[in-house]
Amino acid sequence: MNDVNAILLLSCPDSKGLVAKISNFIFNHNGNIVHADQHTSKRGKLFFMRIEWELAGFKLSREEIPAAFTQLAKQLDIKWDLHFTDYVPRIAVFVSRHLHCLNDLILRQRMGEMAAKIQVVISNHLDARESVEQFGLKFYHFPITVKNKKQQEDRELELLKGLKIDLVVLARYMQIFSAKFLGYYPHKIINIHHSFLPAFAGGNPYQQAYDRGVKIIGATGHYATENLDEGPIIAQDVIKISHRDAIADIQMKGKDLERIVLARALRLHLENKILVYGSKTIVFE
Amino acid sequence: MNDVNAILLLSCPDSKGLVAKISNFIFNHNGNIVHADQHTSKRGKLFFMRIEWELAGFKLSREEIPAAFTQLAKQLDIKWDLHFTDYVPRIAVFVSRHLHCLNDLILRQRMGEMAAKIQVVISNHLDARESVEQFGLKFYHFPITVKNKKQQEDRELELLKGLKIDLVVLARYMQIFSAKFLGYYPHKIINIHHSFLPAFAGGNPYQQAYDRGVKIIGATGHYATENLDEGPIIAQDVIKISHRDAIADIQMKGKDLERIVLARALRLHLENKILVYGSKTIVFE
Amino acid sequence: MNDVNAILLLSCPDSKGLVAKISNFIFNHNGNIVHADQHTSKRGKLFFMRIEWELAGFKLSREEIPAAFTQLAKQLDIKWDLHFTDYVPRIAVFVSRHLHCLNDLILRQRMGEMAAKIQVVISNHLDARESVEQFGLKFYHFPITVKNKKQQEDRELELLKGLKIDLVVLARYMQIFSAKFLGYYPHKIINIHHSFLPAFAGGNPYQQAYDRGVKIIGATGHYATENLDEGPIIAQDVIKISHRDAIADIQMKGKDLERIVLARALRLHLENKILVYGSKTIVFE
Amino acid sequence: MNDVNAILLLSCPDSKGLVAKISNFIFNHNGNIVHADQHTSKRGKLFFMRIEWELAGFKLSREEIPAAFTQLAKQLDIKWDLHFTDYVPRIAVFVSRHLHCLNDLILRQRMGEMAAKIQVVISNHLDARESVEQFGLKFYHFPITVKNKKQQEDRELELLKGLKIDLVVLARYMQIFSAKFLGYYPHKIINIHHSFLPAFAGGNPYQQAYDRGVKIIGATGHYATENLDEGPIIAQDVIKISHRDAIADIQMKGKDLERIVLARALRLHLENKILVYGSKTIVFE
Repeated sequence: MNDVNAILLLSCPDSKGLVAKISNFIFNHNGNIVHADQHTSKRGKLFFMRIEWELAGFKLSREEIPAAFTQLAKQLDIKWDLHFTDYVPRIAVFVSRHLHCLNDLILRQRMGEMAAKIQVVISNHLDARESVEQFGLKFYHFPITVKNKKQQEDRELELLKGLKIDLVVLARYMQIFSAKFLGYYPHKIINIHHSFLPAFAGGNPYQQAYDRGVKIIGATGHYATENLDEGPIIAQDVIKISHRDAIADIQMKGKDLERIVLARALRLHLENKILVYGSKTIVFE
Repeated sequence: MNDVNAILLLSCPDSKGLVAKISNFIFNHNGNIVHADQHTSKRGKLFFMRIEWELAGFKLSREEIPAAFTQLAKQLDIKWDLHFTDYVPRIAVFVSRHLHCLNDLILRQRMGEMAAKIQVVISNHLDARESVEQFGLKFYHFPITVKNKKQQEDRELELLKGLKIDLVVLARYMQIFSAKFLGYYPHKIINIHHSFLPAFAGGNPYQQAYDRGVKIIGATGHYATENLDEGPIIAQDVIKISHRDAIADIQMKGKDLERIVLARALRLHLENKILVYGSKTIVFE
Repeated sequence: MNDVNAILLLSCPDSKGLVAKISNFIFNHNGNIVHADQHTSKRGKLFFMRIEWELAGFKLSREEIPAAFTQLAKQLDIKWDLHFTDYVPRIAVFVSRHLHCLNDLILRQRMGEMAAKIQVVISNHLDARESVEQFGLKFYHFPITVKNKKQQEDRELELLKGLKIDLVVLARYMQIFSAKFLGYYPHKIINIHHSFLPAFAGGNPYQQAYDRGVKIIGATGHYATENLDEGPIIAQDVIKISHRDAIADIQMKGKDLERIVLARALRLHLENKILVYGSKTIVFE
Repeated sequence: MNDVNAILLLSCPDSKGLVAKISNFIFNHNGNIVHADQHTSKRGKLFFMRIEWELAGFKLSREEIPAAFTQLAKQLDIKWDLHFTDYVPRIAVFVSRHLHCLNDLILRQRMGEMAAKIQVVISNHLDARESVEQFGLKFYHFPITVKNKKQQEDRELELLKGLKIDLVVLARYMQIFSAKFLGYYPHKIINIHHSFLPAFAGGNPYQQAYDRGVKIIGATGHYATENLDEGPIIAQDVIKISHRDAIADIQMKGKDLERIVLARALRLHLENKILVYGSKTIVFE
């Protein structure tokens, strides 16, 4: 249990003494806070906090923390999640035919850069199979048609449950999930959209960007919600283009951007640094 | 005439030998080309060029160039504009109540950073008057109501004509011009929009950006056209924001961006580096 | 006293319970914390904190806070500064012959963007005089020679003391201060250096950048210390250049950067968001 | 030969009529210029040009072009290189123990993003072997000691010659080459340095950046020359860091930067867009 930290992500109605009360809870059990960050939404009169402390020396075992914290949480009307830094989340990656984001994630895992484990790659196409299996990962093919869509989603859900998947990453997956599917993974599905949202939502954003003649293109990592491309934004970045860039150049520049932005959004999620508030995120960087 | 250059901005149907024929025109009159840049639109099969040469030693006087070039232009179906680097364009700046872009332009002029002369500042409000007059510039107040809008525009046009204005800069001017007004200054009205277009077109883009929860805000310098915020884009830039940024912070960050982007768009126009092609620009940076 | 906040900037040896003890101090006097941020240097085993709370409802008056906090501070070996958000720091701006940063600061003050008041502009040249006085600000001319340098510095110090200056801004001031002068304003002199430090320290950084053929230039806002250009860095930013950029182009691009970066560094200082730790800064953005 | 273009990269003393004469050469043989870009160094009175035209319809075969162009080249004192867009350069990648850049290049090749073929990976360590061979590429291990360095270099050179290597990429290779080795590949060895040169040249630049407390880190892609880290710079980029970033965080952020910047520098080289001029580059983007 050395070097393991506990992380509380919480939100509650704003009131005096919140920082004191929450840090007292940790201090009173002999915890050493290593990071604490907070935010107050003045409009919503809501308080958000991320607090991380060392388990070494802490007088409560991991199992005892929830019960102990519940008392304070009830009193202050706190919604909370508890995480431990030695837990390795189990990831499913969905992909269609563009493999750059998938390959990037696999390589990051290989190089030990990702605090998670890709358990399975799922696709509605076969393009990714060879590469995925070469990397020693499981690949499942769920072709989607208008007719079988609902059924395939159910099978995918069964698979994810069976594999105890914590987090779904849509690495350029071109199918839209049903509300039912999304409901199983609230704020646990991260999508990469290849534009600077809300500009160029929907299909073929690079073509849209080219046609509009913008001088900068972007990519957006966000949680998937029912309204396509309207989920809470986690990370965005941009790169300059010019009239010299044909569609193919824009796509190539964009690919680098997508990989970086998806990896950044995923890292922030895995480090438990994100709180969702309505359609927005609070990212404690 | 020492150190003065001539600049041709031209477009024509693509064909073999264009670069040779146009550079021969200059060489045959003993001109020294100092910059040449070109672009071919494969879709439109159009050729675009910016070519700059020294007048010193050139065998045609400025006045003789148009007639001499017309021959070649007719033969190749070239549309062209001819500029000389010692001409100082006459600018009118329109502003409403936010003065940061206006003040920035005035200071750039003072510091000798702008190859143009602000002849007049026009506003539908009085906020700018004191500052403008303190800088020794002319200020005109044209209050706009639904009723007098057409009439005031006519008076503004009269004023611009009287002052021989070459270029109109909308430095956060909150009124929309009629097609008639725009028609007098085709691709000669530069607007700064305080968002990363096409995201957050229309009113209050910073509020829109805040509400959507984007992680980056932007500014766009573009030519004004009838369709608001849809004119050809000249320059764009962005800056990161976070959940910590309230509307006031976003506005302050945005102000710096607007000033930089407007100044950049204006400089590109004044250096005759922009060709408009449909709803897009070719910027020979 | 409505809407006024108190801000504590503090550092101390790291130990358990610091967040709890400090937030208890505020909570026990009925204070409402609006921002709290902290950092632990694992190497130095040091704890840094910025904590901001509302004076409205706080049971200690501003005058009583220091004495009350001293007890806790002694016990935990805390070094601290206390600030109030309604205090308007008094600034002296030093400038030589490049006026863009000075003019930018003056305009920001005019537009209400700067939470400080420029009390005086001091220069070793006369270039700035007319413009400064036109803006209604005091201008002092202290020409510097090898012989009179020490004497002039003493006169400058007298002037600054007489004007109760809190903060000195070197807005492209080309003279180096003595250790004596610097000693009067520890971490209270902000300089803008027109390069991406530590690259191109010393004189003529744009020429150095041009000669080296870098593809990006930068600017650095930092606290001035005895070792020229080695003071703690507050803010840095960069802009792309290419082989097309002559020295004059680089200077013009750089000017925009310098203005933005100096303004950003100044704002962070004025918002009491900076703690200096050795030759580095902790910036609670 | 359809869709294949010829590219001339050339430099010569500046004189009137260069653009005309060179474009006439192409036009007179019925060539269609698709790109032309030029630059004049006023100081050095040198003219640089990149000109690209379609081979389809061109009256000279590839083999005939050099002889035909030599006449003009002699007359104008032109140094030139001729390239064809269908040639796939043969690359050798050198790497030590950090594999992120190597893996990135391999994936780009796989995804068809790189207009070159990695023929061999060479390392002074064994870390890369498994991964390289898994990707079906040749791996050679040349361990380097003070004693065997000269000898190993000779063996490496033999290998490169045998494989007809056109371009050497140092993808985080931690050995310095001799002048002899470098002489075989003038401006044909691209190195990635993990800092914003000239800041933090030499070893351990991330540690240097951390110690100095900079707010931005960078990466530089450049041609390797005898003076370590002083070769002509091709591409640079930066990313923001803060006091929260420990060395490990800086390294992770830097890795993404290194991959992007190396790939960009490599792409510019492979597209024959770079002319080296003294210790600087002209990059016709």
